Amino acid sequence: MPITLFNGQLISSDHATLYADDRGFHYGDGIFETMRLVGGCVRFLEDHWQRLILGCARLGIAAPSIDVLNGELTQLIKGQEDGVIKLVVSRGRSERGYRPPVGSQPSRLWQLHTSLPQLVTYGIQIRWCSTRLARNEQLAGIKHCNRLEQILAQAEWSDPAIAEGLMLDTDGELVCATMSNVFLVLDQVIVTPDLRYAGVEGVMRKNVLRLADQLGLSVELRAVRAEEVASAEEMFLTNAVRGIQPVIKLDQESWSVGSMTQQLIMALNHSS
Amino acid sequence: MPITLFNGQLISSDHATLYADDRGFHYGDGIFETMRLVGGCVRFLEDHWQRLILGCARLGIAAPSIDVLNGELTQLIKGQEDGVIKLVVSRGRSERGYRPPVGSQPSRLWQLHTSLPQLVTYGIQIRWCSTRLARNEQLAGIKHCNRLEQILAQAEWSDPAIAEGLMLDTDGELVCATMSNVFLVLDQVIVTPDLRYAGVEGVMRKNVLRLADQLGLSVELRAVRAEEVASAEEMFLTNAVRGIQPVIKLDQESWSVGSMTQQLIMALNHSS
Repeated sequence: MPITLFNGQLISSDHATLYADDRGFHYGDGIFETMRLVGGCVRFLEDHWQRLILGCARLGIAAPSIDVLNGELTQLIKGQEDGVIKLVVSRGRSERGYRPPVGSQPSRLWQLHTSLPQLVTYGIQIRWCSTRLARNEQLAGIKHCNRLEQILAQAEWSDPAIAEGLMLDTDGELVCATMSNVFLVLDQVIVTPDLRYAGVEGVMRKNVLRLADQLGLSVELRAVRAEEVASAEEMFLTNAVRGIQPVIKLDQESWSVGSMTQQLIMALNHSS
Repeated sequence: MPITLFNGQLISSDHATLYADDRGFHYGDGIFETMRLVGGCVRFLEDHWQRLILGCARLGIAAPSIDVLNGELTQLIKGQEDGVIKLVVSRGRSERGYRPPVGSQPSRLWQLHTSLPQLVTYGIQIRWCSTRLARNEQLAGIKHCNRLEQILAQAEWSDPAIAEGLMLDTDGELVCATMSNVFLVLDQVIVTPDLRYAGVEGVMRKNVLRLADQLGLSVELRAVRAEEVASAEEMFLTNAVRGIQPVIKLDQESWSVGSMTQQLIMALNHSS
């Protein structure tokens, strides 16, 4: 069971925590962040705060102050070295109805999972999902809590050998994997979907783009067609918890871990 | 405060009810129904159960048995005559991650609001929303809990004189209003969007279609373009709580309550 903190209070996992009128439960009316705790520190914390604030602004949720969040984070991770932290900020409680209430107090739910997911040492096998992502510019990029599409996509397979599933949008463009961003190397250029219509702008994606720039690698953010995947020289997925995961198998296609992917993994390991 | 029942237990509104790991809160991973209680009976209860079961099936949620739901409903409305009932069925609790857990127990949250919303006596004024609905056939029609688009749409106005807002999908087709279905009368034919890409198949919509059929009125379910609204001879919205609401004003356009709308309202008032 994770360590749980709700609105500043440590909560036993055996006790009910949330109120029945929380808009997070009724409408998925919130934002979340999933962060990695390593050696007592949260990786890329500033990037997580930035995205959280952007997401709250997009949804018109009054973002909690970073001071409050940092205080709660300190309380949550006290004495812990490693783990996965999830923070959900919902719009809070309200009466019945979609209309956002004036002056509502956002709910802050923190969970610290002290077990880390198995990290890959070499590469992962992935598949295609048939569940599509809808296009909505207003919701694209932010990590909001309306995630039925990702749930339906992950329900498509149960084979533990398959680590992830690629997702197209309803127009057939490649967007991401169910919980990761996707990068291809095409003609020695690192290409990743621009996420203008769907998908989440991942914190690890942002840092990989930063590192690629530092390494002088060519990068393109653009619309990516599904059929470009098969002709990729290299492919990898990114995720704030799992880092950079080289893809070595997708249906009948297989890849070895290419040189650009290796350069980025090394640079990530050496970045602070 | 509403009367609240959670998984068979009456709950005080002042106490936390939901567990921190409920997927409804994390992902909007659930289905809901909003029903009208009149004279101690729920209107169109069978239609609500049908849609709930369909929605659960679409999302792969194990629907609670109708016996269990009827038992809880009886407990909830005991001694009450009129009100609005909301039932949320979420997929229940799980560990971190999108993947639906095997064998999870869905959560059942009931709320009974004993005050009814003000019902219109003549007609309502509405507006256009700029927030668009994304297209996703997999999620269209069901009343799932991913409702950020409706929330953003209702946040667009605060003038209480405006009762509702019409919404287009991302391709510019008319879908619905933020919490209602929409019907137009065009060349003496009742037209309503077919909802194949977005929107909720409302219980009141279903009953209006049933009544129109009984009255021998011509009906078309099809794609509706935004510009058709201005040429409508009549327009009305439907909603399980509010019934049939004639639209009398939309921006510069105005309508009187037409004969087809009146026939349907009378037929609805006389239906059991």
